[in-house]
Amino acid sequence: MSAQIISGKDIAADIRSELSGEVAKLVAETGVTPGLATVLVGENPASQMYVGMKNKAAAAMGIYSRQITLPIDTSQDELLGVVAGLNADPAIHGILVQLPVPDHIDEGLVIESIDPLKDVDGFHPMSVGRLATDSGEFFAPCTPAGVVEMLVRSGHDPAGKHVVVVGRSNIVGRPLASLLIRKAPGGNATVTVCHSRTPDLGAVTRTADILVVAMGRPEMVTADMVTPGTVVIDVGTNRVDDPDSEKGYRVCGDVLFDEVEKIAGAISPVPGGVGPMTITMLLSNTVKSARLATAR
Amino acid sequence: MSAQIISGKDIAADIRSELSGEVAKLVAETGVTPGLATVLVGENPASQMYVGMKNKAAAAMGIYSRQITLPIDTSQDELLGVVAGLNADPAIHGILVQLPVPDHIDEGLVIESIDPLKDVDGFHPMSVGRLATDSGEFFAPCTPAGVVEMLVRSGHDPAGKHVVVVGRSNIVGRPLASLLIRKAPGGNATVTVCHSRTPDLGAVTRTADILVVAMGRPEMVTADMVTPGTVVIDVGTNRVDDPDSEKGYRVCGDVLFDEVEKIAGAISPVPGGVGPMTITMLLSNTVKSARLATAR
Repeated sequence: MSAQIISGKDIAADIRSELSGEVAKLVAETGVTPGLATVLVGENPASQMYVGMKNKAAAAMGIYSRQITLPIDTSQDELLGVVAGLNADPAIHGILVQLPVPDHIDEGLVIESIDPLKDVDGFHPMSVGRLATDSGEFFAPCTPAGVVEMLVRSGHDPAGKHVVVVGRSNIVGRPLASLLIRKAPGGNATVTVCHSRTPDLGAVTRTADILVVAMGRPEMVTADMVTPGTVVIDVGTNRVDDPDSEKGYRVCGDVLFDEVEKIAGAISPVPGGVGPMTITMLLSNTVKSARLATAR
Repeated sequence: MSAQIISGKDIAADIRSELSGEVAKLVAETGVTPGLATVLVGENPASQMYVGMKNKAAAAMGIYSRQITLPIDTSQDELLGVVAGLNADPAIHGILVQLPVPDHIDEGLVIESIDPLKDVDGFHPMSVGRLATDSGEFFAPCTPAGVVEMLVRSGHDPAGKHVVVVGRSNIVGRPLASLLIRKAPGGNATVTVCHSRTPDLGAVTRTADILVVAMGRPEMVTADMVTPGTVVIDVGTNRVDDPDSEKGYRVCGDVLFDEVEKIAGAISPVPGGVGPMTITMLLSNTVKSARLATAR
């Protein structure tokens, strides 16, 4: 028996359709169009692609999107000035500075310069702290929020389940643990975080009801590390050499899909899994921010 | 064979003696005396006792301590004004507003009004977020920081171990998980957080190399929930009725000590365990804050 496939692509399409409706309703009722500003320093091709995808997706659902591209030699003060302008701009409800920034700019300083009320990426320490203490208004980081949405909408509510998170990054593993632990919808799970310093990873992953892998190591989770019936979410997106492919590479996750798919209860593919959810949650945060702004 | 007793009282005494030396050195080298301000609103007897203990301990090691007691009908604005004054006062390096505050005052607002650079309690969302992302200068909350110190100083470094944390409070469980997960001394553990919504608590606690219990339920962890050899830290402090005692009550932890002590590899008692560590870490944070201030 094959696993249920958790299609992030399909779930993201559902959410985007709901969001389009919300945007139309917000515009009709308040006259306010949600606004997202993306700031890109330099010409990194991957960053250009990501930013382009974000703006295109925003525009497609009626969100006003402003793309600001700055030269690679932009000074830290110039970048902070741009962010300050966006903080003060009432047309902008979400600010995203595409990471990484060039080495001569202090990334932490730039993140902390964004108004937490417009921090739709959820990387500001105030956002992280409010998520971790479940207090005040905050935006959850997009990838972990997307993972939780995928679980809930595919019928695998984490409440009361044992979720094993592999990876402890600030972008996925740690904030995901915060979301899953809290006393709130999508939370109430028993959560284990394991990582590169865990002596026997398989012994831990085999105890999971739900296994989320975010290590950035191609196809590291093999079938012997997964108990039959487990729900598996694969956050990894890796390029590996593939001489048989036209491009010379293929994209794969952190889970050896062909093997694990045979025994898992449910599994998300790569591509078409977590990837489309991340941008969708960014748009969701932007709409939420606009709604909160109209209520203030 | 009985368990090794992890005496928080003894470890706290060692740290306080080290801190006294640090304070003397700081005064001699920079002329700066670390300063701690405690703010208490109202006359709650338990709060009065805690604040008194903190000030006494601070004074005993040469820390300047200022105790500010405000009437129960102090307005929120008045309290915020007191905190603003302490934020601006160069003689004060640590500010502690004793919780809980009266109902007519917004606790979150008061916590967020404290300068994160003086937030020696570690409850400000900026402190929580910086701890959770391991970025910038921050103070770790005192009780979880005390638990980590107890483990390391008693020879049970959490690195590479499976630590099960029972309880998900903002004061203990969640920040403790942040400390134990991070790539830093006292961290690098595999961490599981379980809580009231975990269906079979014993099944999880039995998988621990190190078990930290912070549920606030008297003697809930019994011997059958602990695998022989486990290191057990008991964060609970509960009063239970005891007609045989002169006071009519006795103080106990969240662990049934007499039973678990027979099979654990090591165990911290209540009282004399985590309790004395909490105040000690507050003093440690205050001294650290003064040292950082002289370097700015």
